[in-house]
Amino acid sequence: MRIRRKPGVEEKLLAQTQYVIDPNRLQQTWSHFFTNDHPVHAELGTGKGRFITTLAQRNPDVNYVGVERVPEVLWQCVKKAVDLNLRNVAFLWMDVQDLPSLAHKGKWERIYLNFSDPWPKRRHAKRRLTHPSFLSIYEQLLVPGGEIFLKTDNAGFFEYSLNQVADRDYRLRAITLNLHESEWREDNIMTEYEEKFSKKGQPIYRFEARLRT
Amino acid sequence: MRIRRKPGVEEKLLAQTQYVIDPNRLQQTWSHFFTNDHPVHAELGTGKGRFITTLAQRNPDVNYVGVERVPEVLWQCVKKAVDLNLRNVAFLWMDVQDLPSLAHKGKWERIYLNFSDPWPKRRHAKRRLTHPSFLSIYEQLLVPGGEIFLKTDNAGFFEYSLNQVADRDYRLRAITLNLHESEWREDNIMTEYEEKFSKKGQPIYRFEARLRT
Ligand SMILES: C[S@@+](CC[C@H](N)C(=O)[O-])C[C@H]1O[C@@H](n2cnc3c(N)ncnc32)[C@H](O)[C@@H]1O
Ligand SMILES: C[S@@+](CC[C@H](N)C(=O)[O-])C[C@H]1O[C@@H](n2cnc3c(N)ncnc32)[C@H](O)[C@@H]1O
Repeated sequence: MRIRRKPGVEEKLLAQTQYVIDPNRLQQTWSHFFTNDHPVHAELGTGKGRFITTLAQRNPDVNYVGVERVPEVLWQCVKKAVDLNLRNVAFLWMDVQDLPSLAHKGKWERIYLNFSDPWPKRRHAKRRLTHPSFLSIYEQLLVPGGEIFLKTDNAGFFEYSLNQVADRDYRLRAITLNLHESEWREDNIMTEYEEKFSKKGQPIYRFEARLRT
Repeated sequence: MRIRRKPGVEEKLLAQTQYVIDPNRLQQTWSHFFTNDHPVHAELGTGKGRFITTLAQRNPDVNYVGVERVPEVLWQCVKKAVDLNLRNVAFLWMDVQDLPSLAHKGKWERIYLNFSDPWPKRRHAKRRLTHPSFLSIYEQLLVPGGEIFLKTDNAGFFEYSLNQVADRDYRLRAITLNLHESEWREDNIMTEYEEKFSKKGQPIYRFEARLRT
């Protein structure tokens, strides 16, 4: 069965120039785009955007960039940003693997990876967003001392990601095998996937990794 | 109910001078004791000793030191070493916390912590063998680049230990949330506790941490 595209979503997205950035057309740096010098945090694979829009509401002094490649999904993010009239969030409609083309637009202080597709088969390891080829992209985008915050319901993806990061020059912290029972639950913002999986009783895994300087 | 002491076990232990070292009497360095310069690996809290005696059999070019404070338990180790006529294993009948007194006897290349008591209550955290006070003891005993290999069935102790080590100057590797299904299962030697817990279907957690040089 083919997935039926909602008609016109791509056009609607591109019309939202306040929120949606065509990566080929981002002429400015991030501080020009947001008209301030606040730090930039990015979420890669935003899904429907509850996480990033809630964060943006809570932290007006941080600029948020959401990256998502599926236009129908990204449109859900944009609608939330419009409804909340957010001034500190923007979305890149693109594939994470093309991010290096934006590195010269300004660096990010933090990257969030939330419930990234786990790609459990070994032959698909290259598609995991914590594969070395992706980590080296992030290292081009992050400031010195920049951070990756990861959460997932998938034990295999967690184990893989932890080992990949441990193999490189990061300092790990706030590692938990059960986020919702841990000391880090207080500040947690649930994503759409997180709500779904934790309702089924699955534990949520999480870590933070900070680039060593 | 009081635990009944097997009569004479302490005397029997001390009589086995080939295997049991009274820490107050170890005059020599480890290479004198073993009469060779092989690297020394230690297990802290050996229990009944299946792990360390199996390792010693497999690796004649490594010297093994087992530390255990309960004499009845240590006696099980000694019996195994006697039966196997091992030449590369010795036991310290002592508390791990007293190990600093032995640091000048020669350094260790590796420390194994297998199924250490988890002490789940926060107020008992100081007793966990991966509490900072214990990690700093190990750092006095390990060579530069020395390693800690940990396995446990207890998710809370694993999480705690991972965070404690991540907070210090180690490089983590071979992290797994399910050792028996992982790529590291092949070389695995089951301890007595490991067998018990994995028979109940519990996953075994494991990591390696190498001191950064
Ligand atoms: C499993 S969903 C999780 C969504 C959201 N983070 C959450 O927790 O609810 C993964 C999302 O990442 C997006 N995604 C996966 N790989 C991507 C890539 N290489 N570039 C951009 N988006 C990607 C998918 O389209 C999907 O929306
Ligand atoms: C839970 S048992 C595990 C035994 C064995 N490693 C296994 O996996 O089967 C923990 C062992 O560590 C010993 N132990 C705990 N704390 C210790 C300490 N501070 N010094 C020496 N031995 C200790 C206990 O006496 C016990 O035999």
